[in-house]
Amino acid sequence: MKDIKKLIGSLSALEFSKMYNNDFLLTWEKTDQEVAAVLKVAEILREMREQNISSKIFDSGLGISLFRDNSTRTRFSFSSACNLLGLEIQDLDEGKSQVAHGETVRETANMISFMADVIGIRDDMYIGKGNTYMREVSKSVVEGNKDGVLEQRPTLVNLQCDIDHPTQSMSDLAHLVEEFGGIENLKGKKIAMTWAYSPSYGKPLSVPQGIIGLLTRFGADVVLAHPEGYEVMPEVEAIARRNAQESGGSFVKTDRMAVAFKDADIVYPKSWAPFKSMEKRTELYGNRDFDGIDRLEKELLAQNANHKDWECTEELMSTTKNGKALYMHCLPADITGVSCKEGEVVASVFDRYRVATYKEASYKPYIIAAMIFLSKVKNPGTTFGKLLENKKSRHFE
Amino acid sequence: MKDIKKLIGSLSALEFSKMYNNDFLLTWEKTDQEVAAVLKVAEILREMREQNISSKIFDSGLGISLFRDNSTRTRFSFSSACNLLGLEIQDLDEGKSQVAHGETVRETANMISFMADVIGIRDDMYIGKGNTYMREVSKSVVEGNKDGVLEQRPTLVNLQCDIDHPTQSMSDLAHLVEEFGGIENLKGKKIAMTWAYSPSYGKPLSVPQGIIGLLTRFGADVVLAHPEGYEVMPEVEAIARRNAQESGGSFVKTDRMAVAFKDADIVYPKSWAPFKSMEKRTELYGNRDFDGIDRLEKELLAQNANHKDWECTEELMSTTKNGKALYMHCLPADITGVSCKEGEVVASVFDRYRVATYKEASYKPYIIAAMIFLSKVKNPGTTFGKLLENKKSRHFE
Amino acid sequence: MKDIKKLIGSLSALEFSKMYNNDFLLTWEKTDQEVAAVLKVAEILREMREQNISSKIFDSGLGISLFRDNSTRTRFSFSSACNLLGLEIQDLDEGKSQVAHGETVRETANMISFMADVIGIRDDMYIGKGNTYMREVSKSVVEGNKDGVLEQRPTLVNLQCDIDHPTQSMSDLAHLVEEFGGIENLKGKKIAMTWAYSPSYGKPLSVPQGIIGLLTRFGADVVLAHPEGYEVMPEVEAIARRNAQESGGSFVKTDRMAVAFKDADIVYPKSWAPFKSMEKRTELYGNRDFDGIDRLEKELLAQNANHKDWECTEELMSTTKNGKALYMHCLPADITGVSCKEGEVVASVFDRYRVATYKEASYKPYIIAAMIFLSKVKNPGTTFGKLLENKKSRHFE
Repeated sequence: MKDIKKLIGSLSALEFSKMYNNDFLLTWEKTDQEVAAVLKVAEILREMREQNISSKIFDSGLGISLFRDNSTRTRFSFSSACNLLGLEIQDLDEGKSQVAHGETVRETANMISFMADVIGIRDDMYIGKGNTYMREVSKSVVEGNKDGVLEQRPTLVNLQCDIDHPTQSMSDLAHLVEEFGGIENLKGKKIAMTWAYSPSYGKPLSVPQGIIGLLTRFGADVVLAHPEGYEVMPEVEAIARRNAQESGGSFVKTDRMAVAFKDADIVYPKSWAPFKSMEKRTELYGNRDFDGIDRLEKELLAQNANHKDWECTEELMSTTKNGKALYMHCLPADITGVSCKEGEVVASVFDRYRVATYKEASYKPYIIAAMIFLSKVKNPGTTFGKLLENKKSRHFE
Repeated sequence: MKDIKKLIGSLSALEFSKMYNNDFLLTWEKTDQEVAAVLKVAEILREMREQNISSKIFDSGLGISLFRDNSTRTRFSFSSACNLLGLEIQDLDEGKSQVAHGETVRETANMISFMADVIGIRDDMYIGKGNTYMREVSKSVVEGNKDGVLEQRPTLVNLQCDIDHPTQSMSDLAHLVEEFGGIENLKGKKIAMTWAYSPSYGKPLSVPQGIIGLLTRFGADVVLAHPEGYEVMPEVEAIARRNAQESGGSFVKTDRMAVAFKDADIVYPKSWAPFKSMEKRTELYGNRDFDGIDRLEKELLAQNANHKDWECTEELMSTTKNGKALYMHCLPADITGVSCKEGEVVASVFDRYRVATYKEASYKPYIIAAMIFLSKVKNPGTTFGKLLENKKSRHFE
Repeated sequence: MKDIKKLIGSLSALEFSKMYNNDFLLTWEKTDQEVAAVLKVAEILREMREQNISSKIFDSGLGISLFRDNSTRTRFSFSSACNLLGLEIQDLDEGKSQVAHGETVRETANMISFMADVIGIRDDMYIGKGNTYMREVSKSVVEGNKDGVLEQRPTLVNLQCDIDHPTQSMSDLAHLVEEFGGIENLKGKKIAMTWAYSPSYGKPLSVPQGIIGLLTRFGADVVLAHPEGYEVMPEVEAIARRNAQESGGSFVKTDRMAVAFKDADIVYPKSWAPFKSMEKRTELYGNRDFDGIDRLEKELLAQNANHKDWECTEELMSTTKNGKALYMHCLPADITGVSCKEGEVVASVFDRYRVATYKEASYKPYIIAAMIFLSKVKNPGTTFGKLLENKKSRHFE
């Protein structure tokens, strides 16, 4: 049992006032202290729940979710986060409404937001689209609030876009902080973010991009490994490079998985689609060239099949630091012989780290709740203090 | 910031005791004082929310929604209203259940209502069906309550039927009260409810019907304009006529948009389907004659296309009172060159009133909450007084 | 108005400590006192609600529902139960996620459960599958809780499986207790659970199985009647036989409806599918032999049609005890001339008992809430005492 008052104390030492009444779209738009504040608030919220203390700050209010891609983990994490703070989930099911691009984004954003305190969006399928859409929604509700249409400004939380997956990368970071005993202990660690083979294609780039965009900030040596043709967005690589420089770490690229794994402290082997093909897919989609998309998908699967040797094996794991690198995955993983014939990771490696990956995922509801909390509460320290004083039970017996 | 106690005071001057434990199906079934009470309660609830005071009157309980037509605005408004008062939304998705007409309406209505405090229904597609269905549901749960099956009587709120759209027309009225500084100021105003061209067909008649059925009650001069063949239900016209007579206003019809706009204080240009065709469609649907429906739809689109000149233009707007009539719309509008090639309104007019139409929509959650509140609370003045005393924050900081 | 304190007193006399932090999967896994405790807690919760006293024990938390078959009644009952206790419903829609068998059951179960206090599952379509799946989910979250992945252990509630339908049979029991003035009055009563004709096929066996598995425990004479070929699972018959022996009642089978109805105090005529065919169907499904399934369905309908005389008629009813047996049904019933041409029951019989069957259904939300309550509250008597003291209104006026 952690001392919550102590945690609140260390939160108060941080500067994060600009997060108030603001969105969370990309981790690299946030300062180091803001990132630290999210981790700290998430830790406090988790500890409060474990100590059965309510952290409900809303008596009523809606949390709107908009998923443009199937989702279980993130959907439930967002629901859990909203519920923890007292917001009721209202899903915007585009099949049951008529949301289109253009004029109506502004309109729909306002129409659903009269009593919305937060909007969470996943829109990760098309390069150049998802993040842009989120900003359009955000701009619309900020305007709506200014114009007197909305009584409050709904906070936008990026639940995965084409560029970043901040609730994932921040959960991964929370997991690392716990595993390594502090964010400062990431300094000098070797982190391998590597592509891995999967029988599917077209997985979003936002996970590797989110990882290199965030984990390069703490003095670690981050290696990005992938076969030729599986490049990520150059803009995000540039951010990773700048981060590494500023933090005293490094960011290097390699086209050999073995190089990335060698002496790594942390490995994150995961499939993703090639950026250029995703760009092409977005273009084809824009032209409604569905035959073209079919052809492209077949090409991509064939291209993928050339790289079946990109698999996280016991052999590779044995080359990591003391043979004991921390294996990470955002889940679900493609596990060879379990969820597919040939996949990202062999079963024995995954099994050894299964519980660890579940714990890695368990931070997400708290990370999302922390993002909302920091946007909705002006003086988190004071508010936490009052909640502790109230000592309302989360589960009354 | 309005003085809530003063608002409560003026509410107490009104007689609305019959709204307790009752439904809200048609505005013309309610007295003027009852209509005024809904507006007042909506105003109080909005002000309470703006002053961050909780108006939660339910600790648990469900608000059931049943949408037989796609909906974003009304769905979110109903969810917001229920949430504001403390009810959790449970959507009755007929695709996931098996609700049919006949014996099972009574049964289903009871089966979903064991802990339901309110049921909101949208059923606007077929003439003669929607309102009838709502009454059947209401009768079923009233009986269920009497028979000891249900511990409470769920309130039925009409979220749009074939005859009326009371949550829309009441929101429109709230908007007018705000814009014109009081319901009494509608006296002598000219209100033009006019048909307008849209590339779609078959939009419900409940909006124009709701408007002429409600706005004729306050001494205004209401004009209903539409091309030949786009008549609305004669029963509702009769109500409008009677209302106008009783209120000292007028209700006239014209087949020229220009006549309606001339010197108007308020214009509401909006597409709807011809009543007779909708009746025919209901009949074809009853016979399951889907080819017939297809043919009818083509005819209707062709008929529509003859009236592309029914468009709310700058020219028409300039003929209104001082060229500054208030433009209204229930949204989404078909905006020429924006959401369609040729539509109900030109972009420059819509743009000038865009924020106003958003505000018009913003009353709906409060109007719905007020309808529920007045049905669920015996002495609203007293209950509001207690809520003010409790002073529980909606958003705790 | 019942005396709640008295009810709490009689609850305290029962031994049910093993229900704490446990699942509810099959009634025959529970002792008589545990079954009695569920009834008592349901009665207390219902009485509290009727006396407008909140029984909310959760300030936040999710109730996860997973329906692998269409549902209205049970869905709304589960939602109502969760809402009554303070849990927000989050539906796991497998169409919107990717839940499969194998490794991923464990993973998904954990991923959705970070803030889940209860998981309700309906999975009744395939013999040998549903209950097994529930146990797999339960085992996964118990492990997750032990491993530190989940902060709490979600309770699993069986909302209908291939073997039992405990929330239905327990509601039926609550209804009988009310109708006959006490569980002890079931001693010596004749209960006829009989097959009846329906134009559909393939209705789950879990209702008749649930009934014979539960109602044989109280000294009643239970008769199971069905045409040849409509056997239920032999394991459940064995349980019914053992129950009857232990309770001093009897369990007999007959292939004649009239024999079952003769002098019966309670009749439960209802269609179900033949067990052997359901087994075959599960096998065909496993082989993805959809043509085979089509053929089987046609065979089953033809087989069904041979037994149209299995109908609950006035004539049959007149042979029951004083011609006044209590007619029961889990609803919806196939009513001859109302919901189908030829069905399970004639309209006049159903009509006479319609309100009674609605009341029978009305216990389900409270039964489910009681199952959750007993798993989540260590000392129900004490907790109920505190709730009474708090005297928070369910509906504040």
